[in-house]
Amino acid sequence: MDIKRPQPGQPIPSHAKRVFKGVIFDVYQWEQEMFDGTRAIFEKAKRQDSVTILPVLPDGKILLAEQEQPGHPLFVGGLGGRIEENEDVLTAAKRELLEESGYISDNFTLWLALNQIPKTDWAVYVFVARDLRKVGDLNLDPGEKIKLVPVTLEEMINLATDKNVCFREQEIVPELLEAKYNPAKKKELEELFRP
Amino acid sequence: MDIKRPQPGQPIPSHAKRVFKGVIFDVYQWEQEMFDGTRAIFEKAKRQDSVTILPVLPDGKILLAEQEQPGHPLFVGGLGGRIEENEDVLTAAKRELLEESGYISDNFTLWLALNQIPKTDWAVYVFVARDLRKVGDLNLDPGEKIKLVPVTLEEMINLATDKNVCFREQEIVPELLEAKYNPAKKKELEELFRP
Repeated sequence: MDIKRPQPGQPIPSHAKRVFKGVIFDVYQWEQEMFDGTRAIFEKAKRQDSVTILPVLPDGKILLAEQEQPGHPLFVGGLGGRIEENEDVLTAAKRELLEESGYISDNFTLWLALNQIPKTDWAVYVFVARDLRKVGDLNLDPGEKIKLVPVTLEEMINLATDKNVCFREQEIVPELLEAKYNPAKKKELEELFRP
Repeated sequence: MDIKRPQPGQPIPSHAKRVFKGVIFDVYQWEQEMFDGTRAIFEKAKRQDSVTILPVLPDGKILLAEQEQPGHPLFVGGLGGRIEENEDVLTAAKRELLEESGYISDNFTLWLALNQIPKTDWAVYVFVARDLRKVGDLNLDPGEKIKLVPVTLEEMINLATDKNVCFREQEIVPELLEAKYNPAKKKELEELFRP
């Protein structure tokens, strides 16, 4: 699978200087020429890119994760996490699927690839995984508590668009919201999530 | 107007240490106890909060801004910008409206207040402004080029949900997407944007 990294609206120029290196965020600054010829310091944050996996079970249900993290209220979303340095996008998706669900798959479809957070360079890849085989148990970080919850497409749409639910995958909400009301979009997603 | 600041899902604890102070981003770190009793460094970025203003002209059209910024392709969105340190939210909204359009108003309605970017504490307040009076010209930063574009609610909905348009206000897209398909939501927004 040839996966192209989505670029942010305003890329960090190659001459930008990394002024901070953190656990999650790096910060870059550069001198930018303004429209009147004056110069100003521009700044952008960068995060390690992430993968989200929405696994489809043989019965057509989508395996979501109900998660707790220290200091964070309960939330629901896909499986996934950070791509490690020098790790391939698909390799990261397979690793996160295995760690967080105990399933493996060779059938990944890239649904969305976005980079849309203002002033931040952070690509998020959303995959649908099919033909799952259970090979083990969950292998979680000490900072994760995950309960796997199989839901129908309709249930996922309702969870994602319910303002009282803390749904983590904000980048897929517009797609699911459209499917909630537009039958053509709903059909498209039914195809996408067909087991 | 009593405006409550929306909190992020995972607030930065008061004992967190600011480890970086930048032009846009500050970064905080703290030691967090994990579920197994071990400890890890958690990190979160913080940005100065922002206001977005959607002004309604007497004819019912909404005044959007078509903007260019150095190193950034053309984009469209509401007026607005960063709230300055120690500046009141509504004061910032009035200031940005005046600077970017030459209009003043005493009739602001808070539509949305969100804080939803992962790992970032950044509140965005979206206002609708009515009863506009033109008192001057645009007073722009050297890093701004703004062309004001009056659009109907329908046109704004189409701009925000057109994947070929770079629409800046991603936080209002779900609302506008719902209004595109759900007549009840459309009616709610027609009320909200009534001059």
